Amino acid sequence: MSETLEMVQAAVETGEGTVRFGPEAPLRLDSGAKLENFQIAYNTYGTLNADRSNAVLICHALTGDQHVASAHPVTGKPGWWVSLVGPGKPIDTDRYFVICANVIGGCMGSTGPADTDPATGKPYGLNFPLITIRDMVRAQKLLVDALGIEKLFAVIGGSMGGMQVLQWAASYPESVRAAIPIACAARHSAQNIALHEVGRQAIMADPEWKNGEYANHGTFPAKGLAVARMAAHITYLSEAALQRKFGRNLQNRASLSFQFAPDFQIESYLHYQGAAFVDRFDANSYLYITRAMDYFDLAAEQDGGLAEAFRGSPTRFCIIAFTSDWLFPPAENRRVAHALNAVAGNVSFVVIDSDKGHDAFLLDEPEMFAAVDGFIAAVAREAELP
Amino acid sequence: MSETLEMVQAAVETGEGTVRFGPEAPLRLDSGAKLENFQIAYNTYGTLNADRSNAVLICHALTGDQHVASAHPVTGKPGWWVSLVGPGKPIDTDRYFVICANVIGGCMGSTGPADTDPATGKPYGLNFPLITIRDMVRAQKLLVDALGIEKLFAVIGGSMGGMQVLQWAASYPESVRAAIPIACAARHSAQNIALHEVGRQAIMADPEWKNGEYANHGTFPAKGLAVARMAAHITYLSEAALQRKFGRNLQNRASLSFQFAPDFQIESYLHYQGAAFVDRFDANSYLYITRAMDYFDLAAEQDGGLAEAFRGSPTRFCIIAFTSDWLFPPAENRRVAHALNAVAGNVSFVVIDSDKGHDAFLLDEPEMFAAVDGFIAAVAREAELP
Repeated sequence: MSETLEMVQAAVETGEGTVRFGPEAPLRLDSGAKLENFQIAYNTYGTLNADRSNAVLICHALTGDQHVASAHPVTGKPGWWVSLVGPGKPIDTDRYFVICANVIGGCMGSTGPADTDPATGKPYGLNFPLITIRDMVRAQKLLVDALGIEKLFAVIGGSMGGMQVLQWAASYPESVRAAIPIACAARHSAQNIALHEVGRQAIMADPEWKNGEYANHGTFPAKGLAVARMAAHITYLSEAALQRKFGRNLQNRASLSFQFAPDFQIESYLHYQGAAFVDRFDANSYLYITRAMDYFDLAAEQDGGLAEAFRGSPTRFCIIAFTSDWLFPPAENRRVAHALNAVAGNVSFVVIDSDKGHDAFLLDEPEMFAAVDGFIAAVAREAELP
Repeated sequence: MSETLEMVQAAVETGEGTVRFGPEAPLRLDSGAKLENFQIAYNTYGTLNADRSNAVLICHALTGDQHVASAHPVTGKPGWWVSLVGPGKPIDTDRYFVICANVIGGCMGSTGPADTDPATGKPYGLNFPLITIRDMVRAQKLLVDALGIEKLFAVIGGSMGGMQVLQWAASYPESVRAAIPIACAARHSAQNIALHEVGRQAIMADPEWKNGEYANHGTFPAKGLAVARMAAHITYLSEAALQRKFGRNLQNRASLSFQFAPDFQIESYLHYQGAAFVDRFDANSYLYITRAMDYFDLAAEQDGGLAEAFRGSPTRFCIIAFTSDWLFPPAENRRVAHALNAVAGNVSFVVIDSDKGHDAFLLDEPEMFAAVDGFIAAVAREAELP
């Protein structure tokens, strides 16, 4: 483990690190498989205090990564949550030690299907084991342990990140002081499974996918992955937001072309989203991570229903939902709040009126900032955090 | 025209017919192009009365066809609106002469991109001109004229069929006694254009599409078309209906497989919908017809906004919407009702509480049947129809 600790030390200093686990410490997965020789790539921001009580773990969404508050190494764009995380922001990196790790199965440094399978010396492809949200959280727990942190001050995330927050609270209640699941659900709905399956079918229909072994063939299912991204992107917005932003406006033209090339701004926008995505994301990772979300059903892990996941929990919860989010509508978020109520959990439930759809959690939403800020401040006072 | 009349006569007797238009009667399209040597395939049910006043034109939706109340020749399934159309049904074929024509651009007998381009002797493919909802209606008007009908008793349809109903009322107000647009809109929204573009991109991403010339290559973009259908099918339902019908139920298995094969019933259902569709529908027709819907914007044809489309209209309208329809939500249907109100039009607006989503208009919806039945009866009394 000395090598591991060395890596960790480097991470704390540089802000970017990778922790490796050798065959002596395999990750035991929900599928029954073991992942050996895996690694977790993560970023940190701020400084861990002396009693290691100021750590905030941020969990990223389906296509997110660990670059939460610093420039993305591929796109050069600012971190995906700079609105919320940074000096003087609601998650204040002058006060908190922020950790964000790429999920297992991902493609930004943590072990995933694009990595080399030690058993064959070739990329895993579909030989990578299926992973679950709980597996992602298990891996994060190993990282947090390696960092010497016994109790996280807070775990926060939106969408799939919110699923991980719920799983953290359910799996390791003593390790989570505050949990902030945003725009998520305790289970993936039939509609959401269906939407994911369309994306996967689009990828698998691309002949360049080659049953997941495209790396061995020097191909990449860019067209299929772009279609999957375009379909998904629509679901991240709302009808009202699309109407407001694009309506029926034409793209650089005065009248309809009577051709199939993009006439409407919304079409050009979607094409751009699809093209940008394939430059930064692995197609097999998309398959694995969407599947992990489909499999998520926190109540199914319990005998007595969802509430049992939280019985006796010492964690304080702040659940945030957005009115126009039709992927994870307020009703699904409310189910979690009600489950916590049923076992006398400590929970605040905030529904924010927004027309920005699911992506609101990534956008400039002052009410969300205020809710996170106020909740974190209250927990910090209660914990007597300096 | 004697050949045309001969065909028409055959149709009235047999219930199925095709009317052909030669180069002397081209269809002038909104794009500026002319369609020469085209045909319209249609079905009829019931008997046209002596004064030709009992004709009801039914307009079909994107993937519908003229087989509204009789078995589909490819699938063998019952007509798509047998719940509404037939002896003793709200649209009573013992009383009314029902006409339903395949739209121009379609693939069930009316001229479309799969047909032979007389200029080249090969299938049109993308040489087929882009068509609009107004072009579809223009073609239907030629059919109705050929049948010797000056004024339709009613024009009715759902989804894209409802768009045609609105276009009929706007283009030929004197020819439409009653108009029943269901689950539709006077314009295609940004979100709906986006959803269509995803479907088109899925088709065009399939290498077997071959720039639309798959017929010349002996291929067919079945995978791409199936993905398009799967994505679209989700939008025809509602989250509540999917949760009620499928939830997270597994398909013929007791536990998760930890594989990418369909685990969930909703996935198997989607796969079935995709596979069944490619057996009966042409991929290029899907491109053309979705584009026609995207282009639909009745207000854009008018100088003074949507209301001007209906100023002075003698037509009676009954607009029907469904609460859980998120493709054509009640608000879009209401816009049409308000436009009619603004010019003192004769309009009833019915919002039906249903959790079945957009497809409700095709399903067993007693409130819809009652609304159509009552409205048609009232118009028949007013018209002193025997």
